[in-house]
Amino acid sequence: MNASTATKPFLRALGGEALPRPPIWLMRQAGRYLPEYRELRATAPSFLDFCYNPTHAAEVTLQPIRRFGFDAAILFSDILVVPDALGQKVSFETGEGPRLDPISGPDDFARLRQSLDMTRLAPVLDTIRLVKSALPAETALIGFCGAPWTVATYMIAGRGTPDQAPARLFAYRQRDLFETLMARLVDASADYLTAQLRAGVDAVQIFDSWAGVLPIVEYERWCVRPIQEIVAKVRAAIPAAKIIAFPRGGGAQLLEVAALPGIAAIGLDTSVDPAWAARALPKGLPAQGNLDPLALLAGGAALDAAVDRILEAFSGRPHIFNLGHGILPPTPIEHVERLLKRVRG
Amino acid sequence: MNASTATKPFLRALGGEALPRPPIWLMRQAGRYLPEYRELRATAPSFLDFCYNPTHAAEVTLQPIRRFGFDAAILFSDILVVPDALGQKVSFETGEGPRLDPISGPDDFARLRQSLDMTRLAPVLDTIRLVKSALPAETALIGFCGAPWTVATYMIAGRGTPDQAPARLFAYRQRDLFETLMARLVDASADYLTAQLRAGVDAVQIFDSWAGVLPIVEYERWCVRPIQEIVAKVRAAIPAAKIIAFPRGGGAQLLEVAALPGIAAIGLDTSVDPAWAARALPKGLPAQGNLDPLALLAGGAALDAAVDRILEAFSGRPHIFNLGHGILPPTPIEHVERLLKRVRG
Repeated sequence: MNASTATKPFLRALGGEALPRPPIWLMRQAGRYLPEYRELRATAPSFLDFCYNPTHAAEVTLQPIRRFGFDAAILFSDILVVPDALGQKVSFETGEGPRLDPISGPDDFARLRQSLDMTRLAPVLDTIRLVKSALPAETALIGFCGAPWTVATYMIAGRGTPDQAPARLFAYRQRDLFETLMARLVDASADYLTAQLRAGVDAVQIFDSWAGVLPIVEYERWCVRPIQEIVAKVRAAIPAAKIIAFPRGGGAQLLEVAALPGIAAIGLDTSVDPAWAARALPKGLPAQGNLDPLALLAGGAALDAAVDRILEAFSGRPHIFNLGHGILPPTPIEHVERLLKRVRG
Repeated sequence: MNASTATKPFLRALGGEALPRPPIWLMRQAGRYLPEYRELRATAPSFLDFCYNPTHAAEVTLQPIRRFGFDAAILFSDILVVPDALGQKVSFETGEGPRLDPISGPDDFARLRQSLDMTRLAPVLDTIRLVKSALPAETALIGFCGAPWTVATYMIAGRGTPDQAPARLFAYRQRDLFETLMARLVDASADYLTAQLRAGVDAVQIFDSWAGVLPIVEYERWCVRPIQEIVAKVRAAIPAAKIIAFPRGGGAQLLEVAALPGIAAIGLDTSVDPAWAARALPKGLPAQGNLDPLALLAGGAALDAAVDRILEAFSGRPHIFNLGHGILPPTPIEHVERLLKRVRG
C-alpha cells in the first residue's frame, strides 16, 4: 500500500478501518438520473458501442465524481460484455433492455468461445486507464462483473425475466450442461476481473443481482460456490485483490457469502436490516450499503430517517455507504446532494 | 371439534399434529394447468364475473380435489375482490393482469367505501356453501385474502408492478394517507375473513405476496403489524379461527410473523431453507410449504430430490406440504401425480 492509496477513504474502509464518516458511492451513479449522462448517451446509437467507447465510458464514469465528489468511481460498463466477449450475440433495444441469442441446449453452448476475446474487451481496459489518469488522488476506482448465476440468467433467457424462470428450469432439466456453462463463466469472470485489476482498478465488485430467486440448495450451488471460485482464482493471480461480493436478495443466506475466504467486503441489498447485519456479519468485515433507492427518490424526512438508521447501525464498524440497489432514473439531483450532506455531516 | 373435523388430515396438521405423511394442497391448484379449468374459464368473458359466479367458482374449486384428492380445497377467488368491494374499479385484461383506477392521493382515497359492500361479496360466500356441501368429509376448505400491503400495491399502482415501487414511494411520501389506507384494509380483510369462516371455511390464509420488497422497518410496519391486527380482529369474532400467514419473500424476517400470537401456521416461500425453518420456527407451529414450482414443472429426479429434502426437514414436526409459490400453468398433470405419490408414499 502506497501513500496515495492509504489516503483514499474508500480503500481505508475496505481495508477494515471504521471511519468517523463512511466513504460513499452509489450503484449506477453514472447513469440516467444525470442530465450530463443523458446528453452524452444521446450521441451514441447503441448502448453496447457506448460501453465500448473509452472516451465516452470514461467521461460518464467521471461525471458523478465531478458533480458530487463520491469517494469511489465505478467503471461505466455492463455485465453482458462477458457473454459478448464469449461470442454470444448481445444487443440492447431502447426501452426494452438486453437481447441475446438464447442458449437453450448443447448446440448453442458449443458455439461459445472457450475463453474471453480480450480484443473485444480492450476498450474496457482502455477506459480504466483513462479514468485512472483523470481521477482525484482521494477517489478510488471500482471495476466489476456480473456473477455467473446472474449472467447465465440473461444468456439462457435471452433477455431480462421477472423471476429468472428460464435459467432455473434449465438448471433443473439440463444440470450437466448448466454446470459446464457456470464453469465457463467462472473462468471468464476471473480472467475479466484480473484484467481490470491489472489495468488499474483499486477494487472489483461481483454483482449477483438475481441470487434472491434461488432456493437454498441452488443458492449454495449457483451463487456461493461460483463466487468463491472466482475469488480464489483472482487472488491466485493477484494476492492483494480487493473483491466486494454483492449477493442481492440472499436474505440471511448472505452470511454464507460473507464468510467466504478472501472477500474484502459484502454488499447489502435494500431488504437487509442494517442492525441485524452489524450484529451478524463477521467482525471486521466491511459492509457496503444499503439505502432504499426509493427513499432517495422520495427525499425529505423519509430519506433522512433511513440514512440515519444505516449510519447508526454501522457506527464503529468498517462501512461504505451505498444504496441497496441502483439509483433510479427519476431521482432528483438535490436528493443526492442532501444524502451526501447527511452522510458526511 | 367434532368427529368429522378431527379426521381431516389437513386440520390435524394445522392443529399441531406431526403426521407420518403430511397433508398436501397446492397454491393455485384450481387454475390454468388443469384442462377442465381452462375449458370452463373459456365460457366466461370476464375473470371477475367468473370469480363472482358461485356455480363456476365452486366447480373449479372442486376440480383439483376430484382429480388429485388433495387434503384441502382452496376457495377459487382473487385477492382484488376486496378493493372491488371497497368501491375501487377493478378489471382483468386477458393476458395483461389486473387493472384498477389507481389511488394516488386523498381524493381517490375519499371515494372508497368505509367498509366492504357485502352484497358484492355474497357470491363468494355462496361459493363457500356450495363447495362445502360437495367436498368429501376428509377434505378441508381454505378461504383467503391478500394482506393489506400486497392489496395496497395493486390499489396504488393500478396494476401489478415488478418491484411495487409505486406503493413503496406512496408510503414514503404520503405516510399518513398510507396509514389510513392500511387501516381500512385491515378492517376490510378482518371482516372478509370472518364472513368466510362463518360461511363454512375450515381455515383462512393471508397472502402477503409482496412482503419481500419491504426493507426491515417497513416490513414490520406494513407486513407484520397489519397481519397481527387482522388475526386479533378475526379471533375476537371467532376465537377458534385457524389462520395461516404467508409472508412471501420475507427471508429470516418471517420469524416475526411466525411469532405472532394466534397464528395457526406459517407458509414458507420457495427461497426458505426447510432445514433452517425446522430449526428456527417456534416448536409446534405447523409449517406449510415449500416446493419450488419450477422443480414441479421440471419433474424427474430434480423434483424427487426437492420433495425428499422437504419431507426430511419437517419429519417429526407438524407440516402441510405445499409449493413455495403458485403452481405454474405449463406444469404437466403427471408431475403433480408424481409429487402426490412421493409425498403420500
